[in-house]
Order: sequence, then C-alpha cells, then structure tokens
Amino acid sequence: MLTVIVKFTVLPGRMDEFLEGLHANAQSSLRDETGCLRFDIHRSRDNEDEVLLYEIYRDQGAFEVGHRGSAHYAAWREVVARCVPDGGHVNTFGTPAFPEDLPEAHDGRA
Amino acid sequence: MLTVIVKFTVLPGRMDEFLEGLHANAQSSLRDETGCLRFDIHRSRDNEDEVLLYEIYRDQGAFEVGHRGSAHYAAWREVVARCVPDGGHVNTFGTPAFPEDLPEAHDGRA
Repeated sequence: MLTVIVKFTVLPGRMDEFLEGLHANAQSSLRDETGCLRFDIHRSRDNEDEVLLYEIYRDQGAFEVGHRGSAHYAAWREVVARCVPDGGHVNTFGTPAFPEDLPEAHDGRA
Repeated sequence: MLTVIVKFTVLPGRMDEFLEGLHANAQSSLRDETGCLRFDIHRSRDNEDEVLLYEIYRDQGAFEVGHRGSAHYAAWREVVARCVPDGGHVNTFGTPAFPEDLPEAHDGRA
C-alpha cells in the first residue's frame, strides 16, 4: 500500500471552489478507482487557508496510473491551478508500518 | 471530530523500540478508548528515520482526556522520551471537511 498525506495552502477567496472540486475528486476516486482505498479531507484547525488530505492506494501503480491517469484527476488539476499558489502543495509519501491493522486491508479492495 | 497528523523523527538505532511502543499505544487506544476512532502508523517513504501517524478522535475531550489521560499514553511517553530528540515531534490538527464521508462516522463509535 501507498499512503499520501497532502498539505494544500489555498488562495484567499478560493476555498469554496477548492473544496467543491476536491470533494468531487475524492468521491470519484473512491467510487471509480479500485485501487483508491481511502481519501479523507480535513480543514486545518490552526490555519484557515490550509487543507489536509489522507489518501491510501493499493500500490504505487494505483496512485500513478489509476489515480493520476483518471479524467476526474485532470479536472481536479484545473481547480488546483486556479486555487493554489506556487509552492502551496506538499505531498508526503508513506507505507503502512502494520498494514494488517488497517481496516482497508480487510475490505476486499486491498 | 478531531484529526491529528503526527510526524516523528526517531533517533538512530531506536526505530524498533519506537515502533513496538507505538504499536502497543495504537492497539490500546483503539481497543480501550471509545473516542479513538482511527490510529494508523506509517513509515515515511523518503526518510527512514521518520514515522507518520493519522489519528481521529470523536472530539477534543476524547483526545485530551480519554487519550492523553490513559495509562497506555503515559507508558508511550516514556518510549518517546527515549527515542525522539527535542523538536522531533510535530502535531498538525484538523477537522473533517465532510465528516459524513468518513467510515468512522457510521461505525457506531463516533
């Protein structure tokens, strides 16, 4: 499995548009990608311009091909281009230390 | 709900001890705290000394009292004191932007 923790800084006045596009991307990813196991969206508690994501994919290919190759991802990138300044998108990649502990390991998709 | 994304930097030679203590803390938190809804442990893909956590609590009290007031948290803090240098523990707090989308909102614990 591959985990992606994402931090976005959103331009002033763009948060509603950003969250609407992000929600559509998350819902399409979970519904249409067999390899997207988790896609959670959070507002930062201490920075009103910051949005945090927690995504889990079955493997690297599910992220690089299944997710980034999808039509909904292309639409999402257009939202990011309008709403996120240069340097406002930081990805941190991880792998589960105890994958058998994750509910997603037992839901038939992983 | 309250989300905590944590980044730990672990001292050289201490990773096995750190992960063992962290795993025990996560398992006790999920088993014994009614307000701990999620506790995932990841190794950073790009930094072998880094560990990432993704935790969800029912509310602030479940985190501050139920989690940080527990016996297993006290034991865990001793592991952190031995394995993590000053400045090697960074918490980022969030709240779900679409809480109804989270599986934990529907599992009877939230």
